[in-house]
Amino acid sequence: MKQSALLVDFYELTMAAAYYEFKPNAQATFDLFVRKLPKDRTFLIACGIDDALGYLQNFSFSKEDIEYLKSFNFKPAFLRFLAKLKFTGDVWAVKEGTIVFAEEPILRITAPLCEAQLVESYLLNTLNVQIAIASKAVRVVMAAGQRPVYDFSFRRTHGVDAGLKAAKASYIAGCYGTSNVLAGKLFNIGVVGTMAHSYVMSFDTELESFKAYAEIFPDQSILLLDTYNYQDGIKNAISVANQLKQKGFRLLGVRLDSGNLVRESKKIRQLLKEADLGFVKIFASGNLDEYKIKSLVTQNAQINGFGVGTNMGVSADAPSCDVIYKMSEITNKSGKFYPTMKFSQKKNTFPGRKQIYRFKSRDGQYRQDVLALEDEKIKAEPLLVKRMQAGRLLHPECAIDKTREFVRNQLKKMPARFKEIKSKAAYPVKKSSRLKKMVLDISQNRKEKQNIV
Amino acid sequence: MKQSALLVDFYELTMAAAYYEFKPNAQATFDLFVRKLPKDRTFLIACGIDDALGYLQNFSFSKEDIEYLKSFNFKPAFLRFLAKLKFTGDVWAVKEGTIVFAEEPILRITAPLCEAQLVESYLLNTLNVQIAIASKAVRVVMAAGQRPVYDFSFRRTHGVDAGLKAAKASYIAGCYGTSNVLAGKLFNIGVVGTMAHSYVMSFDTELESFKAYAEIFPDQSILLLDTYNYQDGIKNAISVANQLKQKGFRLLGVRLDSGNLVRESKKIRQLLKEADLGFVKIFASGNLDEYKIKSLVTQNAQINGFGVGTNMGVSADAPSCDVIYKMSEITNKSGKFYPTMKFSQKKNTFPGRKQIYRFKSRDGQYRQDVLALEDEKIKAEPLLVKRMQAGRLLHPECAIDKTREFVRNQLKKMPARFKEIKSKAAYPVKKSSRLKKMVLDISQNRKEKQNIV
Repeated sequence: MKQSALLVDFYELTMAAAYYEFKPNAQATFDLFVRKLPKDRTFLIACGIDDALGYLQNFSFSKEDIEYLKSFNFKPAFLRFLAKLKFTGDVWAVKEGTIVFAEEPILRITAPLCEAQLVESYLLNTLNVQIAIASKAVRVVMAAGQRPVYDFSFRRTHGVDAGLKAAKASYIAGCYGTSNVLAGKLFNIGVVGTMAHSYVMSFDTELESFKAYAEIFPDQSILLLDTYNYQDGIKNAISVANQLKQKGFRLLGVRLDSGNLVRESKKIRQLLKEADLGFVKIFASGNLDEYKIKSLVTQNAQINGFGVGTNMGVSADAPSCDVIYKMSEITNKSGKFYPTMKFSQKKNTFPGRKQIYRFKSRDGQYRQDVLALEDEKIKAEPLLVKRMQAGRLLHPECAIDKTREFVRNQLKKMPARFKEIKSKAAYPVKKSSRLKKMVLDISQNRKEKQNIV
Repeated sequence: MKQSALLVDFYELTMAAAYYEFKPNAQATFDLFVRKLPKDRTFLIACGIDDALGYLQNFSFSKEDIEYLKSFNFKPAFLRFLAKLKFTGDVWAVKEGTIVFAEEPILRITAPLCEAQLVESYLLNTLNVQIAIASKAVRVVMAAGQRPVYDFSFRRTHGVDAGLKAAKASYIAGCYGTSNVLAGKLFNIGVVGTMAHSYVMSFDTELESFKAYAEIFPDQSILLLDTYNYQDGIKNAISVANQLKQKGFRLLGVRLDSGNLVRESKKIRQLLKEADLGFVKIFASGNLDEYKIKSLVTQNAQINGFGVGTNMGVSADAPSCDVIYKMSEITNKSGKFYPTMKFSQKKNTFPGRKQIYRFKSRDGQYRQDVLALEDEKIKAEPLLVKRMQAGRLLHPECAIDKTREFVRNQLKKMPARFKEIKSKAAYPVKKSSRLKKMVLDISQNRKEKQNIV
């Protein structure tokens, strides 16, 4: 989908106006990365790369955009320049779904300065939310172990775009499906659903409501047990399950949405067993997150699958990741690239055109990453891959199921201590000695310059 | 904008299929409300009402939607029914921007049961995010007192839709403008911007970068001071301000984005005064929220305005509000409405067709609200207004500036204790005695029924 090129912060336009005037031929490299991992996270899942590339591919200002920009005091020549602008840069990125760590470039852009600057806000916007939610969802999935997790978040996500991205990101992270029907259609994800309390309430009795549902969906019914109380809920569900049995169908499951899920699920499992309905699955929902699921699993709650909404869909404990977009190189007057970095208080960045190298142990487990300059010869897997050349997409996106599989395979290679829900372990991301020397040289150079000024 | 009718949770479709079969003529009333106020909030700002109404007005399934739904095992007759479905209900809502409290219906829908059910998820989705962000932004605005607050959140909001809604919601809540250019265009909000660190870095020296900017925007420049260090930053800014002065222009401002903002702003204010540049405004940004702004204001930081991003744009400490959609009435077989409610553990709802009445003290200050049945005669301002009749919009939305003004006027009527950033005060929302009696009657009735069953 073509997005408006007005999805910029205004300062990108004012800066571009200055570049157009004073640095018309400048080119620069920018890194998009996460400065610091959010609370309790030991790694992130890169997600949204293809949306970012799609935006770059279709980047252009419409006539109406330019018309609107005339209401500010930009020079006509600059607006004519914008009217013709396309993205013509090179883009390197990690593969969609890659496990990444703080300070590692997820996307690296080398382009004419104006272009690189004008795409900043959209790139951050689309990657921030998808990385945040994929990185939250993978924790929920890890906590659930072998039990499937379903995305139920649409109603509490931040608008339509967020709802769709949440469904996609959590599927990539390992969820089994979503309640969001449009996401199911757009991304070819399985959709799931049960019934709401209002459904049960709309019938004279709970039993009547269960029977009606089971009549229409005899092999797909999941009955919600807590509209009034669990005791009656399970009694009615068992009665319906027995009727279905007589017709040769199986009640698919029951859903618990409140109360003490450990206690209720054990009681209900017992009652189902006694009724010879051991095949009926117990699903749980209701304000769940990775911490609660971990606790349920630890206490041996008799739950076969989880529906997770709000907390996963807005990544409630870390609703944004500290994703930033920083210049690492710029051309001088003769067109040669030289490395640059930001020095301000505790917010240094790394200069130069960089690559991430991932080292594995002999057993195939991830051991450490090294952030190095692109032209260093390092014998490990480089994670950044060229995806665009001169504004042209080099290879299309990966199918969503392959990306999901890729995430799952990487998780197997992550040592266990990084997969705990509350881990203090920090995966080592070292800087190559050449990169460290470059930082020192630039600082030194800058100090000398300041002394001269 | 027409939104897809597939923006539903799957269970709404399965429930609708059951209603179609077993309750084709049922009508129901649903209340959309917030169950519990988020942390530290004493009130909420209702926001997104017009998006909700716009959705209802345009609600319909497209041919492609129906085609997709054929991949599930719905009966053909039900899909034919969906293909023709429009929203034909009545809608009552509070005015956009209304101050609301927990348990108060923000939107009340009376419609054929299927219709009322199928719109649930979208209504929750669009209102949740806008209420959450408007209710966060109003806190930031209150903390800033007379100083303007600008929305800088686009890059960290949850996608494009969220970015636009955050700009709109925070403007309604009292912000002065946004950095989001598309939001500026779509909602006619003022857009603002300064420069990024990368801009400063793209020049050989900071001074050069400031001069270039001031040459293009001589009366609109806000210079970013912390790319390298504040000491040089302010020296260079003063030098540029003096050059502008000679040409008859005034440097608009400087921006501080890191470090100790109290100390730095005081130092910089002093240096500006000494340089006879007292008119230069000092803006601050960098991970601000209402708590930090309150602290800055209390410590007399010399800051004239705030740019607030992430924390406001995702309502970081409460990224969702506990917004729910519950049935309060349904018709019986003879078509008469009878009240209904949910009883499950600690999650009771209020039955019947309700109205909110707001009582004022003699001095015009808000005193208390009463949640009552619609047909009670109560001498206070009713907050719910009829917005749709039989699917037809009764009056168009209010202009955004009028809504913003409305919020501001209401804030004046809120007693001070509810406007503290960390208030423990709870605004009284009482239930009328008829409403309380209705709850008792229904519980009693239900117990008797259970005994019979």
